[in-house]
Amino acid sequence: MRIAVTGGATGIGRQVVELIQAQGGQVTVFDIVAPDYKVDEYIPLDLSKSDSINTALSQVKGTYDALCNVAGLPPREGNAELGLKVNFIGTREFTEGMLAYLSEGSSIVNVASRAGAMWKDNIEQVKQLMALSEQDDVAKFCEQNQIDYVRAYNLSKEAVIVWGMAECEALLQRGIRINSVSPAAIETGILQDFKNAFGEKTLKNIQRVGRAGLPSEVASIIIFLISPQSNWLKGIDINVDGGMTACNLTDALEIPRRLPVSSL
Amino acid sequence: MRIAVTGGATGIGRQVVELIQAQGGQVTVFDIVAPDYKVDEYIPLDLSKSDSINTALSQVKGTYDALCNVAGLPPREGNAELGLKVNFIGTREFTEGMLAYLSEGSSIVNVASRAGAMWKDNIEQVKQLMALSEQDDVAKFCEQNQIDYVRAYNLSKEAVIVWGMAECEALLQRGIRINSVSPAAIETGILQDFKNAFGEKTLKNIQRVGRAGLPSEVASIIIFLISPQSNWLKGIDINVDGGMTACNLTDALEIPRRLPVSSL
Repeated sequence: MRIAVTGGATGIGRQVVELIQAQGGQVTVFDIVAPDYKVDEYIPLDLSKSDSINTALSQVKGTYDALCNVAGLPPREGNAELGLKVNFIGTREFTEGMLAYLSEGSSIVNVASRAGAMWKDNIEQVKQLMALSEQDDVAKFCEQNQIDYVRAYNLSKEAVIVWGMAECEALLQRGIRINSVSPAAIETGILQDFKNAFGEKTLKNIQRVGRAGLPSEVASIIIFLISPQSNWLKGIDINVDGGMTACNLTDALEIPRRLPVSSL
Repeated sequence: MRIAVTGGATGIGRQVVELIQAQGGQVTVFDIVAPDYKVDEYIPLDLSKSDSINTALSQVKGTYDALCNVAGLPPREGNAELGLKVNFIGTREFTEGMLAYLSEGSSIVNVASRAGAMWKDNIEQVKQLMALSEQDDVAKFCEQNQIDYVRAYNLSKEAVIVWGMAECEALLQRGIRINSVSPAAIETGILQDFKNAFGEKTLKNIQRVGRAGLPSEVASIIIFLISPQSNWLKGIDINVDGGMTACNLTDALEIPRRLPVSSL
Protein backbone atom coordinates (compact mmCIF):
# COMPACT_ATOMS: atom_id res chain seq x y z
CA MET A 1 0.00 0.00 0.00
CA ARG A 2 1.36 3.38 -1.04
CA ILE A 3 -0.52 6.44 0.20
CA ALA A 4 -0.29 10.19 -0.43
CA VAL A 5 -1.20 12.37 2.55
CA THR A 6 -1.48 16.15 2.46
CA GLY A 7 -0.99 17.92 5.78
CA GLY A 8 0.89 14.89 7.06
CA ALA A 9 3.38 16.84 9.15
CA THR A 10 1.07 17.44 12.11
CA GLY A 11 -2.35 16.80 13.67
CA ILE A 12 -4.78 14.36 12.08
CA GLY A 13 -2.56 13.99 9.00
CA ARG A 14 0.38 12.82 11.09
CA GLN A 15 -1.82 10.24 12.84
CA VAL A 16 -2.90 8.93 9.43
CA VAL A 17 0.72 8.64 8.29
CA GLU A 18 1.80 6.87 11.46
CA LEU A 19 -1.09 4.38 11.26
CA ILE A 20 -0.28 3.56 7.61
CA GLN A 21 3.43 3.18 8.33
CA ALA A 22 2.65 0.96 11.34
CA GLN A 23 0.70 -1.31 8.97
CA GLY A 24 3.72 -1.54 6.67
CA GLY A 25 2.42 0.94 4.08
CA GLN A 26 4.54 3.51 2.24
CA VAL A 27 3.65 7.18 2.61
CA THR A 28 4.45 10.39 0.77
CA VAL A 29 3.73 13.44 2.89
CA PHE A 30 2.80 16.64 1.06
CA ASP A 31 2.91 19.60 3.41
CA ILE A 32 4.00 23.22 3.63
CA VAL A 33 6.28 22.28 6.54
CA ALA A 34 8.59 19.26 6.62
CA PRO A 35 7.56 16.49 9.05
CA ASP A 36 9.81 16.33 12.13
CA TYR A 37 9.40 12.55 12.32
CA LYS A 38 10.43 9.76 9.95
CA VAL A 39 8.39 9.45 6.74
CA ASP A 40 9.18 7.54 3.56
CA GLU A 41 9.04 10.61 1.35
CA TYR A 42 8.32 14.32 1.75
CA ILE A 43 7.31 16.69 -1.03
CA PRO A 44 6.80 20.39 -0.18
CA LEU A 45 3.33 21.70 -1.05
CA ASP A 46 1.64 25.06 -0.54
CA LEU A 47 -2.00 24.53 -1.53
CA SER A 48 -2.62 28.27 -1.82
CA LYS A 49 -0.31 28.52 -4.87
CA SER A 50 -0.77 26.87 -8.28
CA ASP A 51 2.98 27.07 -8.83
CA SER A 52 3.69 25.07 -5.72
CA ILE A 53 1.01 22.54 -6.66
CA ASN A 54 2.54 22.08 -10.10
CA THR A 55 6.05 21.75 -8.69
CA ALA A 56 4.85 19.15 -6.20
CA LEU A 57 3.02 17.19 -8.91
CA SER A 58 6.14 17.20 -11.10
CA GLN A 59 8.00 15.37 -8.33
CA VAL A 60 5.43 12.57 -8.03
CA LYS A 61 6.65 9.15 -9.23
CA GLY A 62 4.85 5.81 -9.46
CA THR A 63 1.28 5.15 -8.38
CA TYR A 64 -0.70 5.46 -5.17
CA ASP A 65 -3.51 3.38 -3.66
CA ALA A 66 -5.00 6.34 -1.87
CA LEU A 67 -4.90 10.10 -1.50
CA CYS A 68 -5.81 11.56 1.89
CA ASN A 69 -6.46 15.30 1.69
CA VAL A 70 -5.97 16.30 5.31
CA ALA A 71 -4.23 19.68 4.88
CA GLY A 72 -6.43 22.61 5.83
CA LEU A 73 -6.48 25.95 7.59
CA PRO A 74 -8.76 26.77 10.54
CA PRO A 75 -10.80 30.00 10.64
CA ARG A 76 -8.48 32.85 11.59
CA GLU A 77 -9.08 36.59 11.49
CA GLY A 78 -8.09 37.80 8.03
CA ASN A 79 -7.57 34.41 6.36
CA ALA A 80 -10.79 34.17 4.33
CA GLU A 81 -9.04 34.14 0.95
CA LEU A 82 -6.22 31.88 2.10
CA GLY A 83 -8.63 29.44 3.73
CA LEU A 84 -10.78 29.09 0.61
CA LYS A 85 -7.66 28.54 -1.49
CA VAL A 86 -6.01 25.95 0.74
CA ASN A 87 -9.13 24.09 1.94
CA PHE A 88 -10.93 23.91 -1.36
CA ILE A 89 -9.52 25.47 -4.53
CA GLY A 90 -5.97 24.22 -4.08
CA THR A 91 -7.09 20.88 -2.69
CA ARG A 92 -9.25 20.36 -5.77
CA GLU A 93 -6.45 21.39 -8.14
CA PHE A 94 -3.95 19.11 -6.43
CA THR A 95 -6.42 16.19 -6.42
CA GLU A 96 -7.13 16.57 -10.13
CA GLY A 97 -3.40 16.53 -10.79
CA MET A 98 -2.99 13.41 -8.66
CA LEU A 99 -5.64 11.42 -10.57
CA ALA A 100 -3.01 10.34 -13.10
CA TYR A 101 -1.10 8.65 -10.27
CA LEU A 102 -4.02 6.90 -8.57
CA SER A 103 -4.30 3.20 -9.33
CA GLU A 104 -7.50 1.32 -10.22
CA GLY A 105 -9.45 0.67 -7.03
CA SER A 106 -7.86 3.55 -5.17
CA SER A 107 -9.59 5.77 -2.65
CA ILE A 108 -9.63 9.53 -2.08
CA VAL A 109 -10.54 10.78 1.39
CA ASN A 110 -11.09 14.46 2.05
CA VAL A 111 -11.17 15.99 5.50
CA ALA A 112 -14.19 18.28 5.55
CA SER A 113 -15.71 19.47 8.84
CA ARG A 114 -18.97 19.57 10.74
CA ALA A 115 -18.69 23.30 10.03
CA GLY A 116 -19.66 22.32 6.48
CA ALA A 117 -22.87 20.59 7.56
CA MET A 118 -25.13 23.32 6.19
CA TRP A 119 -24.00 22.73 2.60
CA LYS A 120 -27.53 22.10 1.37
CA ASP A 121 -28.87 25.37 2.76
CA ASN A 122 -25.94 27.24 1.24
CA ILE A 123 -25.83 25.34 -2.04
CA GLU A 124 -26.05 28.41 -4.30
CA GLN A 125 -22.99 30.02 -2.73
CA VAL A 126 -21.20 26.66 -2.77
CA LYS A 127 -21.85 26.45 -6.51
CA GLN A 128 -20.47 29.96 -6.98
CA LEU A 129 -17.27 28.98 -5.20
CA MET A 130 -17.05 25.75 -7.19
CA ALA A 131 -17.38 27.74 -10.41
CA LEU A 132 -14.18 29.67 -9.64
CA SER A 133 -11.07 28.51 -11.43
CA GLU A 134 -7.56 28.51 -9.99
CA GLN A 135 -6.93 31.78 -11.85
CA ASP A 136 -9.92 33.66 -10.47
CA ASP A 137 -9.60 36.36 -7.84
CA VAL A 138 -10.72 34.77 -4.57
CA ALA A 139 -10.22 37.97 -2.56
CA LYS A 140 -12.68 39.72 -4.87
CA PHE A 141 -15.13 36.81 -4.51
CA CYS A 142 -14.99 37.18 -0.71
CA GLU A 143 -15.50 40.93 -0.93
CA GLN A 144 -18.40 40.73 -3.36
CA ASN A 145 -20.14 38.08 -1.30
CA GLN A 146 -19.27 39.55 2.11
CA ILE A 147 -17.50 36.39 3.18
CA ASP A 148 -15.59 36.84 6.43
CA TYR A 149 -13.06 34.36 7.80
CA VAL A 150 -15.63 32.26 9.67
CA ARG A 151 -17.99 32.03 6.71
CA ALA A 152 -14.99 31.31 4.45
CA TYR A 153 -14.05 28.33 6.60
CA ASN A 154 -17.58 26.93 6.62
CA LEU A 155 -17.97 27.54 2.89
CA SER A 156 -14.66 25.85 2.10
CA LYS A 157 -15.77 22.73 3.97
CA GLU A 158 -19.28 22.79 2.45
CA ALA A 159 -17.56 22.83 -0.94
CA VAL A 160 -15.30 19.90 -0.02
CA ILE A 161 -18.39 17.81 0.80
CA VAL A 162 -20.34 18.85 -2.30
CA TRP A 163 -17.37 18.51 -4.67
CA GLY A 164 -16.68 14.96 -3.47
CA MET A 165 -20.32 14.07 -4.03
CA ALA A 166 -20.37 15.71 -7.46
CA GLU A 167 -17.22 13.97 -8.75
CA CYS A 168 -18.19 10.58 -7.34
CA GLU A 169 -19.70 9.32 -10.60
CA ALA A 170 -16.83 10.40 -12.88
CA LEU A 171 -14.35 8.89 -10.44
CA LEU A 172 -16.15 5.60 -10.00
CA GLN A 173 -16.09 5.24 -13.78
CA ARG A 174 -12.28 5.37 -13.45
CA GLY A 175 -12.32 2.86 -10.59
CA ILE A 176 -11.58 5.52 -7.98
CA ARG A 177 -13.83 6.27 -5.04
CA ILE A 178 -14.08 9.52 -3.10
CA ASN A 179 -15.50 10.18 0.37
CA SER A 180 -15.08 12.70 3.13
CA VAL A 181 -15.03 12.80 6.91
CA SER A 182 -16.45 15.70 8.91
CA PRO A 183 -14.78 15.97 12.30
CA ALA A 184 -15.91 18.34 15.05
CA ALA A 185 -13.83 19.66 17.94
CA ILE A 186 -10.68 17.55 17.74
CA GLU A 187 -7.71 17.90 20.15
CA THR A 188 -5.16 19.29 17.71
CA GLY A 189 -3.00 22.39 17.60
CA ILE A 190 -5.84 24.31 15.94
CA LEU A 191 -8.67 23.50 18.41
CA GLN A 192 -8.22 26.94 20.00
CA ASP A 193 -8.87 28.57 16.60
CA PHE A 194 -12.24 26.82 16.46
CA LYS A 195 -13.04 27.80 20.05
CA ASN A 196 -12.25 31.41 19.12
CA ALA A 197 -14.29 31.31 15.91
CA PHE A 198 -17.31 29.35 17.12
CA GLY A 199 -17.19 30.25 20.82
CA GLU A 200 -19.76 28.85 23.25
CA LYS A 201 -21.12 26.32 20.77
CA THR A 202 -17.85 24.40 20.58
CA LEU A 203 -17.43 24.36 24.35
CA LYS A 204 -21.01 23.16 24.90
CA ASN A 205 -20.65 20.38 22.35
CA ILE A 206 -17.44 19.16 23.96
CA GLN A 207 -19.05 19.20 27.40
CA ARG A 208 -22.14 17.41 26.15
CA VAL A 209 -20.32 14.40 24.71
CA GLY A 210 -17.73 14.40 27.48
CA ARG A 211 -14.60 15.54 25.69
CA ALA A 212 -13.12 16.66 22.37
CA GLY A 213 -12.23 13.94 19.88
CA LEU A 214 -8.66 12.73 19.41
CA PRO A 215 -6.72 13.01 16.13
CA SER A 216 -6.30 9.21 16.23
CA GLU A 217 -10.10 8.81 16.37
CA VAL A 218 -10.43 10.67 13.06
CA ALA A 219 -7.39 8.99 11.54
CA SER A 220 -8.86 5.53 12.16
CA ILE A 221 -11.95 6.47 10.11
CA ILE A 222 -9.74 7.74 7.28
CA ILE A 223 -7.76 4.49 7.40
CA PHE A 224 -11.02 2.55 7.12
CA LEU A 225 -12.06 4.65 4.14
CA ILE A 226 -8.87 3.75 2.28
CA SER A 227 -9.18 0.04 3.16
CA PRO A 228 -10.90 -2.57 0.96
CA GLN A 229 -13.42 -3.16 3.78
CA SER A 230 -15.11 0.14 2.94
CA ASN A 231 -15.22 -0.69 -0.77
CA TRP A 232 -18.95 0.09 -1.20
CA LEU A 233 -18.77 3.51 0.49
CA LYS A 234 -18.69 6.07 -2.33
CA GLY A 235 -19.53 9.76 -2.45
CA ILE A 236 -20.49 9.96 1.21
CA ASP A 237 -19.53 12.18 4.13
CA ILE A 238 -19.09 10.67 7.61
CA ASN A 239 -19.55 12.75 10.75
CA VAL A 240 -16.80 12.07 13.27
CA ASP A 241 -18.08 13.97 16.28
CA GLY A 242 -18.67 11.64 19.23
CA GLY A 243 -22.43 12.24 19.03
CA MET A 244 -22.49 16.06 18.88
CA THR A 245 -24.68 16.20 15.79
CA ALA A 246 -27.09 13.58 17.11
CA CYS A 247 -27.56 15.49 20.39
CA ASN A 248 -28.10 18.83 18.66
CA LEU A 249 -30.45 17.51 15.96
CA THR A 250 -32.55 15.67 18.54
CA ASP A 251 -33.03 18.96 20.39
CA ALA A 252 -33.61 21.03 17.26
CA LEU A 253 -36.22 18.64 15.86
CA GLU A 254 -37.77 18.04 19.31
CA ILE A 255 -37.57 14.29 18.99
CA PRO A 256 -38.85 12.53 22.11
CA ARG A 257 -36.53 10.08 23.87
CA ARG A 258 -37.52 6.93 25.74
CA LEU A 259 -34.29 6.51 27.72
CA PRO A 260 -33.49 9.02 30.49
CA VAL A 261 -30.72 11.58 29.90
CA SER A 262 -28.88 13.02 32.91
CA SER A 263 -28.49 16.77 32.75
CA LEU A 264 -24.89 17.97 32.82
CA MET B 1 -15.66 -10.35 21.56
CA ARG B 2 -19.22 -11.58 22.06
CA ILE B 3 -21.84 -10.22 19.68
CA ALA B 4 -25.64 -10.48 19.41
CA VAL B 5 -26.98 -10.45 15.84
CA THR B 6 -30.67 -10.33 14.94
CA GLY B 7 -31.55 -11.73 11.53
CA GLY B 8 -28.32 -13.72 11.54
CA ALA B 9 -29.73 -16.74 9.72
CA THR B 10 -29.52 -15.26 6.22
CA GLY B 11 -28.46 -12.29 4.05
CA ILE B 12 -26.47 -9.42 5.54
CA GLY B 13 -26.91 -10.82 9.06
CA ARG B 14 -25.29 -14.11 8.14
CA GLN B 15 -22.33 -12.27 6.60
CA VAL B 16 -21.91 -10.32 9.83
CA VAL B 17 -21.97 -13.53 11.87
CA GLU B 18 -19.46 -15.27 9.62
CA LEU B 19 -17.06 -12.30 9.69
CA ILE B 20 -17.20 -12.14 13.50
CA GLN B 21 -16.71 -15.88 13.85
CA ALA B 22 -13.79 -15.77 11.38
CA GLN B 23 -12.15 -13.19 13.67
CA GLY B 24 -12.55 -15.53 16.63
CA GLY B 25 -15.59 -13.76 18.12
CA GLN B 26 -18.56 -15.49 19.76
CA VAL B 27 -22.02 -14.88 18.28
CA THR B 28 -25.59 -15.37 19.42
CA VAL B 29 -28.00 -15.36 16.50
CA PHE B 30 -31.55 -14.16 17.19
CA ASP B 31 -33.83 -15.00 14.29
CA ILE B 32 -37.28 -16.28 13.47
CA VAL B 33 -35.66 -19.17 11.56
CA ALA B 34 -32.76 -21.24 12.80
CA PRO B 35 -29.47 -20.73 10.95
CA ASP B 36 -28.56 -23.66 8.69
CA TYR B 37 -24.85 -23.11 9.32
CA LYS B 38 -22.78 -23.40 12.47
CA VAL B 39 -23.24 -20.59 15.04
CA ASP B 40 -22.19 -20.48 18.68
CA GLU B 41 -25.73 -19.96 19.97
CA TYR B 42 -29.20 -19.55 18.51
CA ILE B 43 -32.19 -18.01 20.28
CA PRO B 44 -35.54 -17.92 18.44
CA LEU B 45 -36.99 -14.42 18.07
CA ASP B 46 -40.09 -13.06 16.34
CA LEU B 47 -39.76 -9.28 16.48
CA SER B 48 -43.44 -8.79 15.66
CA LYS B 49 -44.49 -10.27 19.03
CA SER B 50 -43.72 -8.90 22.50
CA ASP B 51 -44.15 -12.42 23.94
CA SER B 52 -41.43 -13.77 21.69
CA ILE B 53 -39.17 -10.81 22.50
CA ASN B 54 -39.61 -11.42 26.23
CA THR B 55 -39.00 -15.15 25.89
CA ALA B 56 -35.81 -14.47 23.89
CA LEU B 57 -34.58 -11.93 26.43
CA SER B 58 -35.20 -14.42 29.27
CA GLN B 59 -32.75 -16.81 27.60
CA VAL B 60 -29.92 -14.26 27.37
CA LYS B 61 -26.94 -14.96 29.64
CA GLY B 62 -23.73 -13.00 30.22
CA THR B 63 -22.79 -9.78 28.48
CA TYR B 64 -22.25 -8.67 24.89
CA ASP B 65 -19.81 -6.22 23.30
CA ALA B 66 -22.22 -5.35 20.51
CA LEU B 67 -25.77 -5.74 19.27
CA CYS B 68 -26.32 -5.78 15.51
CA ASN B 69 -29.97 -5.29 14.61
CA VAL B 70 -30.02 -6.70 11.10
CA ALA B 71 -33.43 -8.44 11.10
CA GLY B 72 -36.01 -6.71 8.94
CA LEU B 73 -38.80 -7.25 6.45
CA PRO B 74 -38.81 -5.81 2.92
CA PRO B 75 -41.87 -4.02 1.52
CA ARG B 76 -44.43 -6.64 0.52
CA GLU B 77 -48.06 -6.23 -0.46
CA GLY B 78 -50.13 -6.40 2.71
CA ASN B 79 -47.27 -6.29 5.24
CA ALA B 80 -47.51 -2.68 6.39
CA GLU B 81 -48.35 -3.54 10.00
CA LEU B 82 -45.92 -6.45 10.20
CA GLY B 83 -43.10 -4.39 8.66
CA LEU B 84 -43.52 -1.53 11.12
CA LYS B 85 -43.56 -3.98 14.01
CA VAL B 86 -40.51 -6.00 12.98
CA ASN B 87 -38.37 -3.21 11.54
CA PHE B 88 -39.01 -0.63 14.23
CA ILE B 89 -41.33 -1.29 17.16
CA GLY B 90 -40.05 -4.78 17.93
CA THR B 91 -36.45 -3.87 17.18
CA ARG B 92 -36.70 -0.98 19.63
CA GLU B 93 -38.32 -3.17 22.30
CA PHE B 94 -35.71 -5.91 21.90
CA THR B 95 -32.86 -3.38 21.99
CA GLU B 96 -34.16 -1.79 25.19
CA GLY B 97 -34.33 -5.23 26.76
CA MET B 98 -30.78 -6.00 25.64
CA LEU B 99 -29.30 -2.87 27.24
CA ALA B 100 -28.94 -4.73 30.54
CA TYR B 101 -26.61 -7.19 28.79
CA LEU B 102 -24.45 -4.70 26.90
CA SER B 103 -21.06 -4.05 28.45
CA GLU B 104 -19.44 -0.64 28.95
CA GLY B 105 -17.96 0.50 25.62
CA SER B 106 -20.29 -1.65 23.57
CA SER B 107 -21.79 -0.69 20.23
CA ILE B 108 -25.29 -1.00 18.76
CA VAL B 109 -25.60 -1.04 14.97
CA ASN B 110 -29.01 -0.85 13.32
CA VAL B 111 -29.61 -1.70 9.69
CA ALA B 112 -31.77 1.10 8.32
CA SER B 113 -32.07 1.70 4.56
CA ARG B 114 -31.64 4.37 1.93
CA ALA B 115 -35.42 4.09 1.75
CA GLY B 116 -35.36 5.94 5.08
CA ALA B 117 -33.37 8.88 3.68
CA MET B 118 -36.34 11.25 3.73
CA TRP B 119 -36.68 11.09 7.52
CA LYS B 120 -36.34 14.85 7.94
CA ASP B 121 -39.13 15.63 5.49
CA ASN B 122 -41.36 13.08 7.21
CA ILE B 123 -40.33 13.89 10.76
CA GLU B 124 -43.87 14.50 12.06
CA GLN B 125 -45.07 11.06 10.96
CA VAL B 126 -41.87 9.51 12.28
CA LYS B 127 -42.59 11.09 15.67
CA GLN B 128 -46.13 9.68 15.59
CA LEU B 129 -44.78 6.20 14.96
CA MET B 130 -42.14 6.63 17.68
CA ALA B 131 -44.90 7.65 20.13
CA LEU B 132 -46.62 4.27 19.72
CA SER B 133 -45.99 1.76 22.48
CA GLU B 134 -45.67 -2.00 21.99
CA GLN B 135 -49.32 -2.31 23.09
CA ASP B 136 -50.74 0.16 20.59
CA ASP B 137 -52.71 -0.93 17.54
CA VAL B 138 -50.32 -0.59 14.60
CA ALA B 139 -52.92 -1.73 12.04
CA LYS B 140 -55.17 1.14 13.16
CA PHE B 141 -52.23 3.57 12.93
CA CYS B 142 -51.63 2.48 9.32
CA GLU B 143 -55.30 2.82 8.46
CA GLN B 144 -55.69 6.25 10.04
CA ASN B 145 -52.56 7.56 8.32
CA GLN B 146 -53.16 5.80 4.99
CA ILE B 147 -49.85 3.99 5.23
CA ASP B 148 -49.48 1.31 2.56
CA TYR B 149 -46.76 -1.35 2.54
CA VAL B 150 -44.24 0.79 0.65
CA ARG B 151 -44.72 3.80 2.88
CA ALA B 152 -44.63 1.49 5.92
CA TYR B 153 -41.22 0.20 4.89
CA ASN B 154 -39.81 3.68 4.32
CA LEU B 155 -41.35 4.95 7.57
CA SER B 156 -39.96 2.02 9.56
CA LYS B 157 -36.45 2.80 8.32
CA GLU B 158 -36.85 6.55 8.83
CA ALA B 159 -37.77 5.73 12.42
CA VAL B 160 -34.73 3.46 12.85
CA ILE B 161 -32.45 6.35 11.81
CA VAL B 162 -34.21 8.95 13.98
CA TRP B 163 -34.52 6.69 17.01
CA GLY B 164 -30.80 5.89 16.96
CA MET B 165 -30.01 9.59 16.78
CA ALA B 166 -32.45 10.42 19.57
CA GLU B 167 -31.16 7.77 22.01
CA CYS B 168 -27.50 8.53 21.27
CA GLU B 169 -27.08 10.85 24.24
CA ALA B 170 -28.74 8.59 26.84
CA LEU B 171 -26.70 5.66 25.56
CA LEU B 172 -23.38 7.47 25.49
CA GLN B 173 -23.98 8.36 29.14
CA ARG B 174 -24.10 4.59 29.76
CA GLY B 175 -20.94 4.04 27.72
CA ILE B 176 -22.86 2.56 24.79
CA ARG B 177 -22.80 3.97 21.29
CA ILE B 178 -25.45 3.57 18.61
CA ASN B 179 -25.22 4.04 14.84
CA SER B 180 -26.97 2.83 11.74
CA VAL B 181 -26.12 1.84 8.19
CA SER B 182 -28.40 2.57 5.24
CA PRO B 183 -27.82 0.11 2.41
CA ALA B 184 -29.42 0.42 -1.03
CA ALA B 185 -30.00 -2.39 -3.54
CA ILE B 186 -28.04 -5.28 -2.04
CA GLU B 187 -27.82 -8.76 -3.63
CA THR B 188 -29.83 -10.69 -1.04
CA GLY B 189 -32.88 -12.93 -1.15
CA ILE B 190 -35.11 -9.87 -0.79
CA LEU B 191 -33.67 -7.70 -3.61
CA GLN B 192 -36.60 -8.70 -5.83
CA ASP B 193 -39.02 -7.30 -3.22
CA PHE B 194 -37.32 -3.92 -3.52
CA LYS B 195 -37.36 -4.07 -7.32
CA ASN B 196 -41.10 -4.79 -7.13
CA ALA B 197 -41.78 -2.02 -4.62
CA PHE B 198 -39.54 0.70 -6.03
CA GLY B 199 -39.48 -0.37 -9.70
CA GLU B 200 -37.46 1.59 -12.26
CA LYS B 201 -35.64 3.64 -9.64
CA THR B 202 -33.87 0.63 -8.17
CA LEU B 203 -32.88 -0.72 -11.59
CA LYS B 204 -31.56 2.68 -12.71
CA ASN B 205 -29.49 3.09 -9.55
CA ILE B 206 -27.95 -0.34 -9.95
CA GLN B 207 -27.09 0.36 -13.58
CA ARG B 208 -25.63 3.73 -12.76
CA VAL B 209 -23.11 2.50 -10.19
CA GLY B 210 -22.45 -0.68 -12.14
CA ARG B 211 -24.05 -3.36 -9.96
CA ALA B 212 -25.99 -4.02 -6.76
CA GLY B 213 -24.01 -4.13 -3.52
CA LEU B 214 -22.99 -7.40 -1.89
CA PRO B 215 -24.11 -8.48 1.59
CA SER B 216 -20.43 -8.73 2.55
CA GLU B 217 -19.94 -5.06 1.57
CA VAL B 218 -22.57 -4.02 4.10
CA ALA B 219 -21.38 -6.51 6.71
CA SER B 220 -17.84 -5.06 6.61
CA ILE B 221 -19.23 -1.62 7.52
CA ILE B 222 -21.19 -3.12 10.41
CA ILE B 223 -18.04 -4.90 11.60
CA PHE B 224 -16.18 -1.59 11.51
CA LEU B 225 -18.96 0.07 13.54
CA ILE B 226 -18.59 -2.51 16.31
CA SER B 227 -14.79 -2.26 16.31
CA PRO B 228 -12.77 0.08 18.58
CA GLN B 229 -11.46 1.85 15.45
CA SER B 230 -14.86 3.53 15.01
CA ASN B 231 -14.99 4.60 18.65
CA TRP B 232 -15.79 8.27 17.94
CA LEU B 233 -18.69 7.51 15.55
CA LYS B 234 -21.86 8.00 17.57
CA GLY B 235 -25.46 8.65 16.58
CA ILE B 236 -24.72 8.68 12.85
CA ASP B 237 -26.14 6.92 9.81
CA ILE B 238 -23.81 5.71 7.03
CA ASN B 239 -25.03 5.27 3.45
CA VAL B 240 -23.77 2.03 1.95
CA ASP B 241 -24.84 2.42 -1.64
CA GLY B 242 -21.84 2.38 -3.96
CA GLY B 243 -22.42 6.04 -4.87
CA MET B 244 -26.14 5.96 -5.71
CA THR B 245 -27.03 8.82 -3.38
CA ALA B 246 -24.14 10.97 -4.58
CA CYS B 247 -25.15 10.50 -8.24
CA ASN B 248 -28.81 11.29 -7.57
CA LEU B 249 -28.18 14.28 -5.32
CA THR B 250 -25.73 15.78 -7.80
CA ASP B 251 -28.44 15.63 -10.46
CA ALA B 252 -31.22 16.87 -8.19
CA LEU B 253 -29.21 19.86 -6.96
CA GLU B 254 -27.75 20.52 -10.42
CA ILE B 255 -24.20 20.61 -9.15
CA PRO B 256 -21.69 21.17 -11.95
CA ARG B 257 -18.91 18.61 -12.41
CA ARG B 258 -15.37 19.26 -13.63
CA LEU B 259 -14.52 15.67 -14.56
CA PRO B 260 -16.25 14.09 -17.57
CA VAL B 261 -18.93 11.42 -16.96
CA SER B 262 -19.57 8.82 -19.68
CA SER B 263 -23.22 8.30 -20.38
CA LEU B 264 -24.41 4.72 -19.81
